Amino acid sequence: MSTTGTPRGNAPDSRGGNAREGLAGNGRDALGGDTPEALHGGAGEGPSGGGGGPLRGNAREVVRGRRPEVFIAHRDEADVLADLAAAAGPLAGLRLAVKNNVDVAGFPTTAACPAFASGPAAADAQAVARLRGAGATVVGVTNLDQFATGLVGQRSPYGGVRDARRPSFVSGGSSSGSAVAVALGLADLAIGTDTAGSGRVPAAFQGLVGIKPTLGTVSVSGVVPACRSYDAVTIMARDLGTAGAAMAAMAGGPGTRPWPADAPLAAPAAARVAVPDELPAMDPGWADAFDATVERLREAGAVVEPVRIEPFLAAARLLYDGALVAERHAAVGAFVDAHPGDVDPTVGAIISRAGKVSASSLVRDVARLELLRQECLGLLGGFDALLVPTAPCHPTVAEVAAEPVAVNSRVGTYTNFCNLFDLCAVAVPAGTVDEGPGRGIAQFGVTVLARPFHDAVALDLARLVAVQPEPPAESAGGAPPLPDGPLPWPAAIADGGVRAVELFVAGAHLAGQPLEYELRDLGARWDRPARTSAAYALHALGTVPAKPGLVRVGAGGAAVEGEVWLVSEGALGRFLANLPAPMTLGRVELSDGRWAVGFGCTQEAASAGEDITKYGGWRAWLSSR
Amino acid sequence: MSTTGTPRGNAPDSRGGNAREGLAGNGRDALGGDTPEALHGGAGEGPSGGGGGPLRGNAREVVRGRRPEVFIAHRDEADVLADLAAAAGPLAGLRLAVKNNVDVAGFPTTAACPAFASGPAAADAQAVARLRGAGATVVGVTNLDQFATGLVGQRSPYGGVRDARRPSFVSGGSSSGSAVAVALGLADLAIGTDTAGSGRVPAAFQGLVGIKPTLGTVSVSGVVPACRSYDAVTIMARDLGTAGAAMAAMAGGPGTRPWPADAPLAAPAAARVAVPDELPAMDPGWADAFDATVERLREAGAVVEPVRIEPFLAAARLLYDGALVAERHAAVGAFVDAHPGDVDPTVGAIISRAGKVSASSLVRDVARLELLRQECLGLLGGFDALLVPTAPCHPTVAEVAAEPVAVNSRVGTYTNFCNLFDLCAVAVPAGTVDEGPGRGIAQFGVTVLARPFHDAVALDLARLVAVQPEPPAESAGGAPPLPDGPLPWPAAIADGGVRAVELFVAGAHLAGQPLEYELRDLGARWDRPARTSAAYALHALGTVPAKPGLVRVGAGGAAVEGEVWLVSEGALGRFLANLPAPMTLGRVELSDGRWAVGFGCTQEAASAGEDITKYGGWRAWLSSR
Repeated sequence: MSTTGTPRGNAPDSRGGNAREGLAGNGRDALGGDTPEALHGGAGEGPSGGGGGPLRGNAREVVRGRRPEVFIAHRDEADVLADLAAAAGPLAGLRLAVKNNVDVAGFPTTAACPAFASGPAAADAQAVARLRGAGATVVGVTNLDQFATGLVGQRSPYGGVRDARRPSFVSGGSSSGSAVAVALGLADLAIGTDTAGSGRVPAAFQGLVGIKPTLGTVSVSGVVPACRSYDAVTIMARDLGTAGAAMAAMAGGPGTRPWPADAPLAAPAAARVAVPDELPAMDPGWADAFDATVERLREAGAVVEPVRIEPFLAAARLLYDGALVAERHAAVGAFVDAHPGDVDPTVGAIISRAGKVSASSLVRDVARLELLRQECLGLLGGFDALLVPTAPCHPTVAEVAAEPVAVNSRVGTYTNFCNLFDLCAVAVPAGTVDEGPGRGIAQFGVTVLARPFHDAVALDLARLVAVQPEPPAESAGGAPPLPDGPLPWPAAIADGGVRAVELFVAGAHLAGQPLEYELRDLGARWDRPARTSAAYALHALGTVPAKPGLVRVGAGGAAVEGEVWLVSEGALGRFLANLPAPMTLGRVELSDGRWAVGFGCTQEAASAGEDITKYGGWRAWLSSR
Repeated sequence: MSTTGTPRGNAPDSRGGNAREGLAGNGRDALGGDTPEALHGGAGEGPSGGGGGPLRGNAREVVRGRRPEVFIAHRDEADVLADLAAAAGPLAGLRLAVKNNVDVAGFPTTAACPAFASGPAAADAQAVARLRGAGATVVGVTNLDQFATGLVGQRSPYGGVRDARRPSFVSGGSSSGSAVAVALGLADLAIGTDTAGSGRVPAAFQGLVGIKPTLGTVSVSGVVPACRSYDAVTIMARDLGTAGAAMAAMAGGPGTRPWPADAPLAAPAAARVAVPDELPAMDPGWADAFDATVERLREAGAVVEPVRIEPFLAAARLLYDGALVAERHAAVGAFVDAHPGDVDPTVGAIISRAGKVSASSLVRDVARLELLRQECLGLLGGFDALLVPTAPCHPTVAEVAAEPVAVNSRVGTYTNFCNLFDLCAVAVPAGTVDEGPGRGIAQFGVTVLARPFHDAVALDLARLVAVQPEPPAESAGGAPPLPDGPLPWPAAIADGGVRAVELFVAGAHLAGQPLEYELRDLGARWDRPARTSAAYALHALGTVPAKPGLVRVGAGGAAVEGEVWLVSEGALGRFLANLPAPMTLGRVELSDGRWAVGFGCTQEAASAGEDITKYGGWRAWLSSR
């Protein structure tokens, strides 16, 4: 490995904002012959293509050389290319950057404090091991706000990380290097961590997707804790498909929180989404960008209504001004107290102060937090999710340097409460804000927050509003997006996700038919059109609404058109418990030889119905009437 | 109301042990003509019978007069009798005593510290309100170890509570008055609270059932916190049926933790139960009593195997010697610090010390506890439950006075870890230990501990080993046992329990048939024999093992014998997801006109099977072959 980041004391803004000018001038000449197209990533570079040839590697090295603060250590590119070529699995061909508070075997885990690491990590953190097991290739370990304490990306002796598009602006943090690595195409996936927004804020500033899963569903084993009760391992990627595939690989395994049997696999069709009744702390133009996102959500069919946001924001004050910060001292306070000269002054002050908090006051603040949580979950009672701006502004390096704590707190306005309330979150890019000639174009991001284990709901709703941004001018490309997986990620977790059952429907529950809402309300997910094997007859029963009687008749039967939906075991049980006669559920053979759970009916009802097999399916029969 | 308990400073043993001698001498003459039979409770006094006439009321007043330390305040008996006569609901006719750290409208909530109560409570705690709503009649509020800090029942200015049978022994605590009130027939139900064993230890010493439900399933609203993260409201009663009915009424409602859709409704038929590999701290004879209980469990069909108990006991050390005690300071420390003269010296010392703990060390101890929890749940991986002695010994009042803290810790050896690990528990009487002529006969109790939300499993296994004790010599009677409810209590909670689905089976899943284990493994509960309406035909399908094809044929059909099982929605979904062709599930009409979920089969399979309707049922057909 080569160490590309060098601790440079506490001068996070020492590089200023000249990199962009350098690129706009003769920067491209320095790329060793890369065309601009190649630099932005060509369509021919697929996830299984090995990650690019020497030319691409060269482009990456040039970009990386301009941004030495992004990686704390990077593997030799030749080793990376060899691993990419040999990789197998759903994430094969994808470059993975890992925030350096997460163990990667062979790299010191510095948490952006060089003296903190006693030597190279002996083994990968469980999250890293699972991504590698799915085929991802680790390229290096990334810079962060020291001890993951910050949302700005400037609190690091390895240098303040600069925004990928506007280098005089901050990257966002604390997962600063991970975010910029992905934004610049130096990685396709990055592991972040998130306690108060560290996985979402930098994703928003860098125009990325950031998934902050339900607490505990990804192991934090091998991760330097920040606030152990609220820490989550996150994924950042340029698109939802890639991020979802990574989450499916990373979540689950030993020590993780089990998924409830009835966790939803999808958002309802006409979701009810809450939005803040007021938008404090927003920079000029940012509220308009949020309103435009809300409009897109409405146009996509969601019902959007305001909720009182104040009690959510009150939790943030408990985090910053209350006793909860003691968790940071419990995590790394012994080191910080013993090594004052080795620690970033802003971070050190926060953590040392946290050591003076009494346990009694912490318990009281936790109790206050629980009351706030109950109040806020009550406010969300009739909603499927809450949509907020991910951040209210995007500060410059200079603004953060002037007021390091106040600006940091403001940046976290809409992220802080999430983990405290055990919500899951999906942050997505949602357009841009033109901040005028002095500042330029800011990336604007929103976050969909949902109840614990409603990660699939948050993902579905985030997809409705996500806008894929233009890559930064100096992007080195990167792998193309992955399509959405065949299963939503909570159902794709090999060991510990929600078990998804395939349910074949052939009548009133088909998409667009009168009972589709029953499936939607159960959190079922439309999967694919399908047909039975040629062993069935279809009857129209005399029910209201009309229902299909699918009867297995064996030889002499026909193939019947329908759809496969995915449903959790818990929801399937509820569905069956409420299923009225004469409908039944059992195995139905599909045309590809697989069997799904599907509708049947009693023989009595089928005999009384009309045989409509000749139409081939319910919709065809309906249109013939 | 009349206040029967008077604070008497800090002299918990000032009454000595003479009450028993008084009763054995001319005590019964003082009962105003009650026969010994009446004093022990007559069979004619049913739960709907209004709780006894004047004679019974008189007996209760006599017993209560001899034990003035049991109630801190008691309602006038005439008011109680009027309420009992007017009561309606599943708990009608049952007298309810409430530990005085739980709000009862009109009574000061002293937590056994008179200066702590600012006046009468304005409203019932949610737990009390729900029991009253189900028909229970509050008779008064009971003594406790001050601020629920203790397991002995001696730390109270209202007097140390004496054992119901051996008055020179302690009652156990902290729910001391509640336990002795039930043991003496002064109440049929009592609310306790339990953080480290306060609802289980006194139940064991007093020969009672104590249910410590999964944390959060009963609201703690209106309860003075002890350690807010680990506090549970418990029920004590003389029998499992009454305790279960009370839990079904008390659990659920606003602010309670939702039950997972697949929480089991029963223990498996051949349960696997872990027992400690060693039994530290046990008094002579107590280990033998435990071994005898284990033998009964084996005879009842359970597989019993040892697990390493040391990591469980290590959690207790964290509770007593670590930072977790800070929760007690957060709860009442401000009062204790400001009123040193009003507080029991042992309790005051514990709570004041807890105020000096740092938040950082608390967070670290919580993290250590989480590691222990994971280790212990790992040890229980292959088991349905853990059986332990509830307490290892039953100390005298003098023994506790000599070493108030050390004896208290020892008493909690087998109870402390439960709430810390988020286990649920059912404590039951399990026989006696003859401690020799100097001490007499001790009540011996065991506790079944199970995973969170496996309360029905714990209840089922506890029933296998429970031994109903003889009532104390001076018992005032009390209502007779309630039968087990039609639903296990997690399924009987009106708003928030596990939804129990009725599943009608008619073949291989019948009790004793080859596939019964599939239902047992899903946590299903056998409910009742049943038969279909006279609209069905039964076929024997050519499957292995043979399965029934139940076909609705309408007029001309017959009634088919079977059984109804109860199953959770989550388990039903899993069952359906794995159900092989040609079986189906749908509505089946029962002979009483109700519909259950039940088996059917495809028409194709039924046609190929043998019509065995004339036998009336599967078992009859099997025995005809």
